[in-house]
Amino acid sequence: MIDARIIDKLKEIVGPDNVAAEIQDLLCYGYDATQMEFLPDAVVHPADTAEVAAVMKLANQERFPVFPRGAGSGFSGGALPKGGGIVLVTTRLNRILRIDTENLIAEVEPGVVTEQFQQEVEKLGLFYPPDPASLKFSTLGGNVAENAGGPRCVKYGVTRDFVMGLEVVLPTGEIIRTGGETYKGVVGYDLTRLLCGSEGTLGVITKIIFKLLPYPEAKKTMLTIFDSIDGAAKAVSTIIGNKIIPTTLEFMDHATLKCVDRRFKMGLPESARAVLLIEVDGDRELIERQAARIQELVKPLGLVECKVAKDAAESEALWKVRRLVSPSLRDVNPDKYNEDIVVPRSKVPDVIRRIEKIQQKYDIPIVNFGHAGDGNIHVNVMIDKEVAGQQEKAHEAIREVFRAALDLGGTMSGEHGVGLSKAPYIPLELSPVQIATMQAVKHALDPNNILNPGKMFPA
Amino acid sequence: MIDARIIDKLKEIVGPDNVAAEIQDLLCYGYDATQMEFLPDAVVHPADTAEVAAVMKLANQERFPVFPRGAGSGFSGGALPKGGGIVLVTTRLNRILRIDTENLIAEVEPGVVTEQFQQEVEKLGLFYPPDPASLKFSTLGGNVAENAGGPRCVKYGVTRDFVMGLEVVLPTGEIIRTGGETYKGVVGYDLTRLLCGSEGTLGVITKIIFKLLPYPEAKKTMLTIFDSIDGAAKAVSTIIGNKIIPTTLEFMDHATLKCVDRRFKMGLPESARAVLLIEVDGDRELIERQAARIQELVKPLGLVECKVAKDAAESEALWKVRRLVSPSLRDVNPDKYNEDIVVPRSKVPDVIRRIEKIQQKYDIPIVNFGHAGDGNIHVNVMIDKEVAGQQEKAHEAIREVFRAALDLGGTMSGEHGVGLSKAPYIPLELSPVQIATMQAVKHALDPNNILNPGKMFPA
Repeated sequence: MIDARIIDKLKEIVGPDNVAAEIQDLLCYGYDATQMEFLPDAVVHPADTAEVAAVMKLANQERFPVFPRGAGSGFSGGALPKGGGIVLVTTRLNRILRIDTENLIAEVEPGVVTEQFQQEVEKLGLFYPPDPASLKFSTLGGNVAENAGGPRCVKYGVTRDFVMGLEVVLPTGEIIRTGGETYKGVVGYDLTRLLCGSEGTLGVITKIIFKLLPYPEAKKTMLTIFDSIDGAAKAVSTIIGNKIIPTTLEFMDHATLKCVDRRFKMGLPESARAVLLIEVDGDRELIERQAARIQELVKPLGLVECKVAKDAAESEALWKVRRLVSPSLRDVNPDKYNEDIVVPRSKVPDVIRRIEKIQQKYDIPIVNFGHAGDGNIHVNVMIDKEVAGQQEKAHEAIREVFRAALDLGGTMSGEHGVGLSKAPYIPLELSPVQIATMQAVKHALDPNNILNPGKMFPA
Repeated sequence: MIDARIIDKLKEIVGPDNVAAEIQDLLCYGYDATQMEFLPDAVVHPADTAEVAAVMKLANQERFPVFPRGAGSGFSGGALPKGGGIVLVTTRLNRILRIDTENLIAEVEPGVVTEQFQQEVEKLGLFYPPDPASLKFSTLGGNVAENAGGPRCVKYGVTRDFVMGLEVVLPTGEIIRTGGETYKGVVGYDLTRLLCGSEGTLGVITKIIFKLLPYPEAKKTMLTIFDSIDGAAKAVSTIIGNKIIPTTLEFMDHATLKCVDRRFKMGLPESARAVLLIEVDGDRELIERQAARIQELVKPLGLVECKVAKDAAESEALWKVRRLVSPSLRDVNPDKYNEDIVVPRSKVPDVIRRIEKIQQKYDIPIVNFGHAGDGNIHVNVMIDKEVAGQQEKAHEAIREVFRAALDLGGTMSGEHGVGLSKAPYIPLELSPVQIATMQAVKHALDPNNILNPGKMFPA
């Protein structure tokens, strides 16, 4: 599909050093955080919006697929070049263009790494709350395309809530601006939020205007250990019902705790069945009172222990339990499918109980942790690919997990997106008319189906 | 276009009592808060989603336009049946379906009046912040369709930020659900936010799932009077720069103050050139400290006087100045064009200065007030329609006001939308490619151009 003639044209657009078609290069851009891999025909590294636009125009003339990619840290295969074509890497568009301390906005290019951006705004006393687990390497363009979440979303919202405007190269190669520098703005359709979470299928993001907040004065971290899942879940709704919206309400189930304790000897109490890592932030005096009130509220709910951090170092130590979850899980089984269902907050105990039954039925370990404050649970189905038939069983189990989430009024994905890995399950959640409506929007913006084809919708 | 045969079919769908085609009925549904008026051929009042869908299917078969309408309180002609067709009134879909105090969500039909909804959730200790000025009669469906704002948006965001999911009858008559009951959710395109602010051109909203917040414990209101616009504007950025995000930061310029004082004798100081009505809400102790800090911060900025409300009654008295603005303006000139430009917060003084020059050039009084915290200024061009040529002059002046807002990085509308009244100006703000992209989305969802035709885009 991509022949030498097209490679030459790509080299004319981005320069010969920024097109790669050797196997060792293709391998570097054919994977992501899933266990899937597909080789592209070529990889291009444009330097700016004009080059991205020229690549897209060429792709429409020559009819080859383009797969936009940031750091490739996605969990649903959204950036993978299935079927071949070119991978368009945005990491050279990596400048923070401005941070406006008067209007609390920033303008960035899509290849800026999330954590680097956070550090830069924090130097100025400002705050960019979205904190996906991949923030040390994920790029902001990818965060917007996937509408990334993270632990702090309970209080602050998701990536979408901080995107004010975009510059986008449309699938046809035309360049548009959406939204702007003002938070309010109702002229025309909200293409900004349509692009957020569109998984690189409706446009290549080339600039982002973010809303920022003042950096919170202080924070307070607590690790609360419960003797039952229900106790931990009840704690979540009790805290929020008492008008405290914590920054984070991170949940770990018994299986998760056992994994972490087995490997890292955290010394968690024998009776620990669930843990909530709770953080509040804001005004120094207010959060002291909130922390005290939270301790009071959770005490009658089967609390085994509550550790309260006195300073930043102690806070870091409490976060360690949460941070060690991923490295610990490998011990259970070498491979895993990491799903991220969401249910209404009050339905967390119900969904966990249903998942326990699914685990027993399929005899595959399932480990649950995640963002209980917004009902977003990472369901990790732990498999050993070497064991014959286990992958198939795992897919069946995952289908049942999705059904459970949907039955309880939830969704199959709160953060990871659909991409390739959830596309076959989409008809569980969306009706044929919903899917047709979304496909009509896709076709309206990408009539030749050039940009990231084969994603989100079932084949 | 709408003949007796179609009227009969409409009567079959919604019942004979719920179709009106007499002139006295048509007059009631041909106006809004603009000074425009267009008579429809008929008015239908469906009772539920199925009836809305049947009307839309009929409209596609018979190819007549449908104009959805809530309370008709819009400021841009968005609900007006220009060109004829039927007005579809949503006010019979007026039930609050549920308020879920555990998950802080509510599900409502579109015809519920905004204030009534606020009162119901407040009875349960919950909070729905969006507060458009029309809240006593505007409907929630209209609020979502226009992405309504209000004074509290500085801290809490606009209507869009509270919409989690919708049930929508598409222009073709198909029914879909978008979003859901969970705040996080990234399965498929974000049709929910695409529908928000789409001004009734992409679907008829038949159910809305709203996110709610705990009701703030307390609030504190201050009326700060400055000897210059610059002082008031500087106060806005100084307060936010000092990490306090007030609930409201309402601005009134000198012309506004003179109008209010002339008619209602508020006894404002002679040297008053601008006023900020500032409110903070939240934790009782925290807001006391915030209020004290705000007073300290604004003192050096040409503060003439600061009145701090001690209780709810005093707070109400301070709000009176702001509430009397609209009834006072009539005294300047009988008619007005009420625009709602937005500029980045720091550019408020610049835009006000430019508007002063425009006022001098055209010799038409212009009065400015609004939501300075998010740079959203209501620019009231005061005209007397009896004076020959004044309307034309006013339109020229408005065009220059829009240009000023756009030059300063802003937008023509923060709350009112485009509808009919701003459609001719759209090319000032959006590029031909932006407009074509939006029209492609419109065409994808409404191939026969049935739903609210002639709105948003230039003819």
